[in-house]
Amino acid sequence: MKKHGYKGMLVVVEGTDFAGKSTQIELLKKYLECQAFGVVVSEWKSSDLIASVIDDAKDRNLFNANTFSLMYAADFAYRMENHVIPSLEAGFVVLMDRYTYTAYARDVVRGVKPAWVRKLYDYAPVPDLTFYLDLPVKSLMKRIIAAQGFDYYESGRDIGFSTDFYESFKIYQTKILEEYSKMVDEYGFVKVDGNKSIEDIHEFIKDKTQKLLKTKFE
Amino acid sequence: MKKHGYKGMLVVVEGTDFAGKSTQIELLKKYLECQAFGVVVSEWKSSDLIASVIDDAKDRNLFNANTFSLMYAADFAYRMENHVIPSLEAGFVVLMDRYTYTAYARDVVRGVKPAWVRKLYDYAPVPDLTFYLDLPVKSLMKRIIAAQGFDYYESGRDIGFSTDFYESFKIYQTKILEEYSKMVDEYGFVKVDGNKSIEDIHEFIKDKTQKLLKTKFE
Repeated sequence: MKKHGYKGMLVVVEGTDFAGKSTQIELLKKYLECQAFGVVVSEWKSSDLIASVIDDAKDRNLFNANTFSLMYAADFAYRMENHVIPSLEAGFVVLMDRYTYTAYARDVVRGVKPAWVRKLYDYAPVPDLTFYLDLPVKSLMKRIIAAQGFDYYESGRDIGFSTDFYESFKIYQTKILEEYSKMVDEYGFVKVDGNKSIEDIHEFIKDKTQKLLKTKFE
Repeated sequence: MKKHGYKGMLVVVEGTDFAGKSTQIELLKKYLECQAFGVVVSEWKSSDLIASVIDDAKDRNLFNANTFSLMYAADFAYRMENHVIPSLEAGFVVLMDRYTYTAYARDVVRGVKPAWVRKLYDYAPVPDLTFYLDLPVKSLMKRIIAAQGFDYYESGRDIGFSTDFYESFKIYQTKILEEYSKMVDEYGFVKVDGNKSIEDIHEFIKDKTQKLLKTKFE
């Protein structure tokens, strides 16, 4: 991956499910818009064409690790080419809910080679800022039980760690967190304590982003 | 890519459009079945889930080179995992109409880096035999005009070589042939003169396959 030379700015919010990513992106979006920046949000697995195929395959538990990896990579490439890169060229601030790092974590836990999955995304630009919402498994468990219960894939049930949803979720998310923590230094994540209040986290993210905006646009 | 250790045998027929691949695969299939081999045929871009997305995107000219590359790679991975590998494990002779080499040729002509596209497929087993039906552009032009006329993608119109279908087809297929000829030595293709008669080509392919069957199954 290379530093980009686009007019706009690329800000990524990474983290496990229920770490609070979409809440923080929504708040940051409003904050930036109040300063008259053009803001675009792009979410993991959201391209019209490919997302339905991925969901269909998930429903039927059809894919194994390599295919899944390639499907997500295709979806990502599609979004980058049709939405993210044109927005960056036009000078927008692009906020991304998950980036390539999500694939690095999930695919590797599913048995794909780290170097291989990184190669799939090596054309993608390095973000100007990557916030990593770090939430321990214990807190994550509480949030998911309160919110919706366990999803098959979020629990890593497809991998076969355990037939028990609770156990499987715990093992899976612990492994995902291990992968993320390996990436903190590798990719220069700005680590944020996900157990802090929504307001505190927003304040922190806002300040860091504001500093970068100054160096970039002033 | 690595040599496989499956019970079955993997035979690939490669070449440009209209080189006669499907005719030869049909004849080889019948020949092998008469000898009581279990035969499975797998064609490029034929998985239920993904092929329709690719066609839809082609219709709307939506994808650029990286995304296309990843979509085809996902389709291929899906077929390998769900059809080809299980068949090889079960001892079938698998005949493939195009293999990873088709992607190496097409994607590179569309501007994707050779090393990158090769990396996408590096988990795929090395075929036991790869026949390359080599047909010069002149003969190809005659066949396509007689058969159906020019298709948008087969003519490489998406790349923008020329707005004239005839010219674009000629430039595109010439470049594709250049890529294939580079691969002959790199991947040990068994080159077959595509201008020979269907019977002569079948005879040649049959003999080569028979020899390999002997070393493999006797």
